[in-house]
Amino acid sequence: MPTYKAPIDDVNFLFNDVFQIDRYNNLAGFSDASADVREAILGEAAKFAEEVLQPLNRVGDLEGCVRHDDGRVTTPKGFKEAFKQFADGGWLGLSAPVEFGGQGLPVTLTQTVAEFQTSANMAFGMYPGLTQGAMAALLVHGTDEQKKTFIPKMVAGEWTGTMNLTEPQCGTDLGLLRARAVKQADGSYKITGTKIFISAGDHDLAENIIHLVLARIEGAPAGIKGISLFVVPKRKINADGSLGAANGVSCGSIEHKMGIHGNSTCVMNYDDATGWLVGAENKGMAAMFVMMNEARLGVAVQGLAMSEVAYQNAVAYARERLQGRALTGPQSPDKPADPIIVHPDVRRTLLTIRAFNEAARAMVVWTSLKSDVAHRSGDAKERQVADDHMGLMTPVLKGVLTDTGFANTVLAQQMFGGHGYIAEHGMEQFVRDARIAMIYEGANGIQALDLVGRKLPRDGGRAAMAFFAEVAAFAKEHGADEAMKPFIAPLSTSLGHLQQATMWLMQNAMAKPDNAGAGATDYMKLFGLVVFGYMWAKMAKVAQDKIAAGDAAAYLKTKQVTGRFFMERLLPETAVHLARIQSGSATVMELPAEAF
Amino acid sequence: MPTYKAPIDDVNFLFNDVFQIDRYNNLAGFSDASADVREAILGEAAKFAEEVLQPLNRVGDLEGCVRHDDGRVTTPKGFKEAFKQFADGGWLGLSAPVEFGGQGLPVTLTQTVAEFQTSANMAFGMYPGLTQGAMAALLVHGTDEQKKTFIPKMVAGEWTGTMNLTEPQCGTDLGLLRARAVKQADGSYKITGTKIFISAGDHDLAENIIHLVLARIEGAPAGIKGISLFVVPKRKINADGSLGAANGVSCGSIEHKMGIHGNSTCVMNYDDATGWLVGAENKGMAAMFVMMNEARLGVAVQGLAMSEVAYQNAVAYARERLQGRALTGPQSPDKPADPIIVHPDVRRTLLTIRAFNEAARAMVVWTSLKSDVAHRSGDAKERQVADDHMGLMTPVLKGVLTDTGFANTVLAQQMFGGHGYIAEHGMEQFVRDARIAMIYEGANGIQALDLVGRKLPRDGGRAAMAFFAEVAAFAKEHGADEAMKPFIAPLSTSLGHLQQATMWLMQNAMAKPDNAGAGATDYMKLFGLVVFGYMWAKMAKVAQDKIAAGDAAAYLKTKQVTGRFFMERLLPETAVHLARIQSGSATVMELPAEAF
Repeated sequence: MPTYKAPIDDVNFLFNDVFQIDRYNNLAGFSDASADVREAILGEAAKFAEEVLQPLNRVGDLEGCVRHDDGRVTTPKGFKEAFKQFADGGWLGLSAPVEFGGQGLPVTLTQTVAEFQTSANMAFGMYPGLTQGAMAALLVHGTDEQKKTFIPKMVAGEWTGTMNLTEPQCGTDLGLLRARAVKQADGSYKITGTKIFISAGDHDLAENIIHLVLARIEGAPAGIKGISLFVVPKRKINADGSLGAANGVSCGSIEHKMGIHGNSTCVMNYDDATGWLVGAENKGMAAMFVMMNEARLGVAVQGLAMSEVAYQNAVAYARERLQGRALTGPQSPDKPADPIIVHPDVRRTLLTIRAFNEAARAMVVWTSLKSDVAHRSGDAKERQVADDHMGLMTPVLKGVLTDTGFANTVLAQQMFGGHGYIAEHGMEQFVRDARIAMIYEGANGIQALDLVGRKLPRDGGRAAMAFFAEVAAFAKEHGADEAMKPFIAPLSTSLGHLQQATMWLMQNAMAKPDNAGAGATDYMKLFGLVVFGYMWAKMAKVAQDKIAAGDAAAYLKTKQVTGRFFMERLLPETAVHLARIQSGSATVMELPAEAF
Repeated sequence: MPTYKAPIDDVNFLFNDVFQIDRYNNLAGFSDASADVREAILGEAAKFAEEVLQPLNRVGDLEGCVRHDDGRVTTPKGFKEAFKQFADGGWLGLSAPVEFGGQGLPVTLTQTVAEFQTSANMAFGMYPGLTQGAMAALLVHGTDEQKKTFIPKMVAGEWTGTMNLTEPQCGTDLGLLRARAVKQADGSYKITGTKIFISAGDHDLAENIIHLVLARIEGAPAGIKGISLFVVPKRKINADGSLGAANGVSCGSIEHKMGIHGNSTCVMNYDDATGWLVGAENKGMAAMFVMMNEARLGVAVQGLAMSEVAYQNAVAYARERLQGRALTGPQSPDKPADPIIVHPDVRRTLLTIRAFNEAARAMVVWTSLKSDVAHRSGDAKERQVADDHMGLMTPVLKGVLTDTGFANTVLAQQMFGGHGYIAEHGMEQFVRDARIAMIYEGANGIQALDLVGRKLPRDGGRAAMAFFAEVAAFAKEHGADEAMKPFIAPLSTSLGHLQQATMWLMQNAMAKPDNAGAGATDYMKLFGLVVFGYMWAKMAKVAQDKIAAGDAAAYLKTKQVTGRFFMERLLPETAVHLARIQSGSATVMELPAEAF
C-alpha cells in the first residue's frame, strides 16, 4: 500500500526563504497568515491528508461511484464521513471571503493545501476543488442575492458545486453547444440539455449541489457569443433558504473511466431545470474565463501532487528492494543484495522526478502569490504586473505540470518492476489518476495554443518581456558568483533559446499562423523548462546563502545537488524544442488528411 | 469502439522493396515464403486479427480471467473459441521446424503476424507468444524425447507453454531465487516453490500447459551459477503420450493488474511437482539467455503493435471529430466546424507516432531477418555478423520500442480529449496494456545496462563498429544526392553524436562504471534514434527510386514526408542524449540514499 507524507519542509523553504511571503503583509489576509498560523494550518492539512484522505485512496479506486436505479449516486465507503470532517475543518473556505464565512487567507496557502489533499487522494480532492471553482465564478459574477444564497453553504460544505460545459459534440469548441435556456416570467430560466464528463456531478456528500451551466438563451447569437452562464441547484431553494423540491436535473449515468474512480464523473440531464442567469446575457464565456486561471492552476497542482506522491513511494521502494549489486561492488555485503537505490539509473530516474517536483512547487507558489497580488493589491500597476504574470504562466503551468507530472508517475511506477503493474502497490493508480489532468480544463494542446496565440502576443508581449528581463537580471546579478555558475550559465543559454524561439514566432507566425500551431507545444515546454531553471537558480542561491550563514541542514545540500541535476540533465532539452519550433509547419501541413 | 486494419502495404514495402527478402532464398524456409505465399499468409493473418481477435479485445479487458474456487482458471468469453481457430489455422507453428509439424517459415514472417495479432488483442497474443518462447527453449536445449513429446502438441496448440522465472524476492536478480529441485531415482525432479507474474500460467485454452521453470537443485552453488531449467507439465504425460494425472502445480491466485486483463497473470505454486531437467545442471541461465533475444524482440513488437493500433484510431477520430476552425480559416465551411486534423498540433502528434511506427517496423524486419540468417545460414561468418547484430539491437529494440510505443498510446489517447479517458473508446486500454511491455522480459533500465555493459563492449565493440560503418557507408553513398540531403545531413550529425557518446563511454566508464550506469538509458535512446534515422534514410531512398521509376502511389510521398518529419523533429534529440551522457555520474551519485 502506498504512503504519503506532506512535504511541509519544502513548502516552508519556499514560503519563508525563497519567496519570503511575509513581505506581502500589506495585502488583505496575509498578515493573518503569519508564520505560526501557516505552520499550524499546514500541519493540520498534512495530518488530514495523511491520516484521513490517503487511506481512502485505494478504496475509492476499487469501489468507484455508483448510480443506483432510483437515480441516486453514492460515493465510495468513507468518502462521506471524510467530507464531513473536511467541511467541519473549514478547508473549503480557507481563502473565501470572511463575510461569507470564509477565512480570507491567501490563495497561495489554499493551493498548497490542495497539493497535499490531491497527493493523498486526487479523486476526493476534486469535490472541494470544483466547489471552490463554482464559488469563484459566483463571487465574481453572481448577484448579491446569489452570493448570499450559495456561498455560505458552499463554504460550510453543506452544498457543493460543479462546472457544466462539455456536451457530446463539443468540448474545446464551446461555440457548438446546444443546451438551451428559456426565460420565464419570474426572471428565472428553464434549462434543457445534456452535459457530459461532469466531475462531482452527483453524489451523496452534500445535501445540495450547485451546478454552473453554460447554455444558450432562445434567440441568442450562434457560436460562443450566444452563450450564457446559469446557476442551477440540484434542489430548489425556498424563500427562507431551506431546501425545496427536486429540480429538473439528474445524473443519467456515470462514465467508466481510466482513473479517478472515486470521483463521480456524470452525464447530467437537464430537463426544464430552473436556473438563474449569472452575469450578463450572452457573456457566459467571459464569466468562465475569469476563473479559468485559478482552475487551471488547480489542475497544474494535480500534476505536481501526483508526481510527488509517486516519487515518495518510488524512493521508499528503491531503498528497500534488494536486487543485484552496485556496479562498483557490494554496498550492503551483509545482505543478500543491495537496495536498488545504489544504481545510477535508478537515481537518475528519481532525481528526474524530484528536480521537477521542487521546481514545479516553486513555480506554483510564485504564481499563486501573483494571483493573490492581482486580487488583493491596492496598487493598480502591481495588480497589472501580477495579472500579466498569471495570464502568461497559466497555460505553461497547466500544460507542463500535468504532462510532466503524468510522465513522472510512469517513471516512478517503473522503479517497481513488475510490482508496479500490480494494483496492490498503488503505483498504477497514480498513473491512471494523473492522466486526466492532461485532458480536462483545456487539453494541453489547447494550453499551448493559448500561450502562443493569446498570452504571448497580448499587450505587445509585455508579460513575456517582463519575465525575460527578470531572469536576465537575476543572471546578471549572480553571474560573477563562482558558486552560482553551474546554474547561471545553463539558465542563460536556455533563456537565449526561449528568446530565439519567441523571436522566430514573432517573425514567422503572424503571416503564417500554422507556424505558431506547429511550434506551440514545443514552445510551451521550452517556456516551462526556462521557468524551472529560474526557480532552481533562485532556490540554489537561497540554499547557498543559508549554508554560508552557517545553516547545516542536510536538505540545503540536497537542494543544490538536485538543482545541478536539473541544469545538467533536463534544462538542455531547450535546444531541441527550439530546433523543432524553427523547423516550422511546412512538413507538418504537407500531407492531405487522407494520407495519414 | 476501436478498430484495426493490419498495415499490409507497409509490410510489403519493407519485405519487397526495402529489404528485398527474396534475396535470402538460399536460407531454409525462405523459398517457401515467396511473394505470393507471403501475401496469402499476411492476408489471412490480417483477417484473423481484424475479424476474430480485435472484437474480443474489449471483452477481454472487461471480463479478465477468473480463478474459480476449485482452482480452475477461465479466460474471457470467446477466447477459447478464438484460440481453437488460431491453433487450427497453424499460426503457432509458422516458423517451427517441419519435423515437429511446423511450417519452417522465416521468423521475420512470424514477427509480422505477431504484430497484427498484438495490435488486435495484446492479451490474447501473449498465449501463443509464450508458447512459442517455451518451444524455442525446448528446441535448443531439450532432449530429443522432450522435443518429440512437447513440440508437436505445442505447434498444434493442444498444449501451451509458460516461462517461470520471477519470485516475490527476485525479478531482475535471479541469483536470489529459491525454488528448489530434488532429484528422484528415475531421473526426474520434484520442484517446489512459488513463482509470480506468470503470464498464461493457467487457463482453459488448452488441455495441458508446459511450464519451463527455473529452480535450484539441492546442493547447487549459490547465485545464478546454481540455477537449472526444468520442464514441468500441468498434467503428467503417460508413456503412450496421453495425458495422465495432475502434477503438483497450481495457480494460487490471479494478479490484479493495470492492463492485459485478458491474459491470466498467475501466482504459481509448485509443490513437489514432477519436472525434468532441460539442458545441463546449473546451466539454467544460459538456457534462458539463448531465447532471450527472440523473446525480447517479441516484446519490442508489442510496443510497436500498440502504437500502431492507437495511431489508427487517433487518425480516424481526428478526421471525424468536428471542433473549432483551422488557424488559416474554415476548411469545411459547410460543416459546423473543421475536423481536428486541420490543426498543426494534431498533425504534429500524429506524425510523431507514425514516424516511429514505420521506422520501428523497419527495424523489426531488419533485425528479424538477421535472426533468420543467424539461425539458418550455412556461412559461419554470415551467422556471426547476424548474431552480432541481434545481440546489439535486442536491448535497443526492447527498450526503445516499448518506451516509445507506450508514450505513443498516451499521445493517441490525448487526441480524443475527454473521450480518450472513457473506457468505451478503448484508447485508455491501449495505454494500460502497452505499459507492461516496458517492464517484463527485463525492465527497460536493465536493457540499457545490457547494452552499455555487455553488448557494446563485447568482442571489442565489433557489433557497434559494424553498425556505425554501415550507416556511414550509406551516408557516403548518398550524400551527394540532392534529394537525399534532408535525410543524410541529420543522420550524419546524429551518427556523430552516437559515436561521440560511445567514445565517451569507452574513455570514462571502464575505470568508473557508474558513468556507464548514469548514461545507459540515454545511450539506448540515442542508439535507437540513430537506427530509426537510418531506417528512414533507407526507406526515403527506396521511395525516391520508385517515384523516379514512375510509381505514382500516394504512399511513397507519405513516406518521404513522414521521414522528413522524423529528421526535423525527432532525430535532433540525439544532441540532448549526448549532453546527458557526457554529464557523467558525479551529480547522480552525490547524495546519500537517505537524502532522496
